[in-house]
Amino acid sequence: MEWKIGFIGFGTVGQGFAEILLEKKEMLKEMFGINYKVVAISDMLKGSVYNPDGLDIKKVLEMVKEGKKLDEYPDGVKGLDALATIRETNSNLIVEVTYTDVKTGEPALTHVRTALQEGKNVISTNKGPPVKAVKDLMKLAEENNVFYGFEGVVLAGTPVFNLLEYCLAGNTIREVKGIVNGTTNYILTRMEEGMSYDDALRKAQELGYAEADPTGDVEGWDALGKIVILSNVIFDANLRWEDVPREGITNITLEDIKSAKDEGKRWKLIASAGLNEDGKFYAKVGPEKLPLSDPLAGVSDATNALTFITDELGSVTIVGPGAGRRETGFSLLIDLINLNRKMG
Amino acid sequence: MEWKIGFIGFGTVGQGFAEILLEKKEMLKEMFGINYKVVAISDMLKGSVYNPDGLDIKKVLEMVKEGKKLDEYPDGVKGLDALATIRETNSNLIVEVTYTDVKTGEPALTHVRTALQEGKNVISTNKGPPVKAVKDLMKLAEENNVFYGFEGVVLAGTPVFNLLEYCLAGNTIREVKGIVNGTTNYILTRMEEGMSYDDALRKAQELGYAEADPTGDVEGWDALGKIVILSNVIFDANLRWEDVPREGITNITLEDIKSAKDEGKRWKLIASAGLNEDGKFYAKVGPEKLPLSDPLAGVSDATNALTFITDELGSVTIVGPGAGRRETGFSLLIDLINLNRKMG
Repeated sequence: MEWKIGFIGFGTVGQGFAEILLEKKEMLKEMFGINYKVVAISDMLKGSVYNPDGLDIKKVLEMVKEGKKLDEYPDGVKGLDALATIRETNSNLIVEVTYTDVKTGEPALTHVRTALQEGKNVISTNKGPPVKAVKDLMKLAEENNVFYGFEGVVLAGTPVFNLLEYCLAGNTIREVKGIVNGTTNYILTRMEEGMSYDDALRKAQELGYAEADPTGDVEGWDALGKIVILSNVIFDANLRWEDVPREGITNITLEDIKSAKDEGKRWKLIASAGLNEDGKFYAKVGPEKLPLSDPLAGVSDATNALTFITDELGSVTIVGPGAGRRETGFSLLIDLINLNRKMG
Repeated sequence: MEWKIGFIGFGTVGQGFAEILLEKKEMLKEMFGINYKVVAISDMLKGSVYNPDGLDIKKVLEMVKEGKKLDEYPDGVKGLDALATIRETNSNLIVEVTYTDVKTGEPALTHVRTALQEGKNVISTNKGPPVKAVKDLMKLAEENNVFYGFEGVVLAGTPVFNLLEYCLAGNTIREVKGIVNGTTNYILTRMEEGMSYDDALRKAQELGYAEADPTGDVEGWDALGKIVILSNVIFDANLRWEDVPREGITNITLEDIKSAKDEGKRWKLIASAGLNEDGKFYAKVGPEKLPLSDPLAGVSDATNALTFITDELGSVTIVGPGAGRRETGFSLLIDLINLNRKMG
């Protein structure tokens, strides 16, 4: 099958994925038998363009780099909004990468839901929709015989859901715990070296890890969304945001870090979920003092990691990037590769 | 398709897998649509039994536990050797888990080759055949439209080859490096705490990590076999044992470890391969002093880990067990699950 791709949103991640598609076109065809063309792009700020015979991605990327609107693209239909692009184009694969309010999941939730209902495959790095309704969306995809890939929503391109499906399947997962926010891990790593919280935050902002308003990261909201998704996918826990106790890193002082060091331990912001010792389900986000022998203790800077505690293998930990233009773009590529294996 | 399983070899790993098959029979059917029966078992020491309608695994496991020969099983054909079991039974999936000379790869190499030539799927944790001929065996499987799964040969059930195929595919892998031998990592961890090499080795032997003759582990031969397999699968390097420089851990002293500690570093036995700075392929096994910021530096005791250095994701590291009855048995289960997805 030829994949006719429609981008909904064309910011950093969308462009990162478009670059990968362009650079790896031959490899994708030779190694995986993947044929594709990009037929439509619709972006709230950059405008939209649709050509059922395919767009020239190189040209599109150049235009965007020069700050031009997509409406200036030399041919094709202009002016289709996101929903029209999903419904009225010949696309059979929607790449959903819009900016989205994580609390409501919108507008991405409507985009994903509409595409699946229209019988179109969806790959998306957008955390909003799965935080609100991951199991509903998975069910909707199944009912419509299409694919909903969201590898990138927790650790960007570092394997999580494909790891569970293709590498850890057959295990019973007892717990999952990890470092799922790079900004806070960067700040804690700098504080470990003696830097103050304020200086470390400023440095994280300079490097583009933290936003001007860092609340989403430092108060644990980003990690909270991710543990909600993991809980609902792995444990079918039917959790909502408000069900999960959350604490950020803003109460951790340099003294706390030093005294942990003296005990041979290290503070990390840990998101975790699973069965506790009484066999009851729990999920939480908060700072924890880890012994240095814990594989998560050695994870430094903006790197992320997740430990899966399983019945057959014991603990298995994956460590890798949790953000980045190409790193997140790659999560869409691996979703495309596995989509093509299943449905191609 | 119903999988009709023939075990060639029925030692620790074979029994571990048989236990998992027995305990997870319902789950495999419900979650993955896997139907199986074990039709034959042939073991050099324990004898052999074949019943085309299936054996009672529970009974077989009990008999073996009691030290009985398989020939005492109440029904079925007795006396078939490994090759006859491969050729003359109705099995369509051979589980190859014999004791094998790693240098020649035999007898497992002949078992795997024969099964693939007979058009039978093979799953195997045996390092011997892939060290000698992994690409030939992969090609033979492809030519015969069957599956050759060997997830367990490097890190037992900790994901390596499925991680590459289903999670990292689409990346160009530049280097792979890791801790692929648990015994030596256990010894180095104890030495890090101040124990002498001799005491640490003795402790490893008591715990069953090291054999009476520890040469295979401590001189780096086990790690060497694993880096040969990784080099040939990932980089198509066409390497043989004798092509790879190898050094073990027997020359590392407590003083070396202490002076590394003073530098904020840690000695690890590292197997690595890939492109060096000049773009030339290399592969080697030897002790390396790692900075504590390296994800491999924090991997302690008998735990194993592999870092993949990729073009899109940078470094991704997997950490988990590298040995064990159920842990290695699980690698056969995940191979069965992925086989069933491809060919079921």
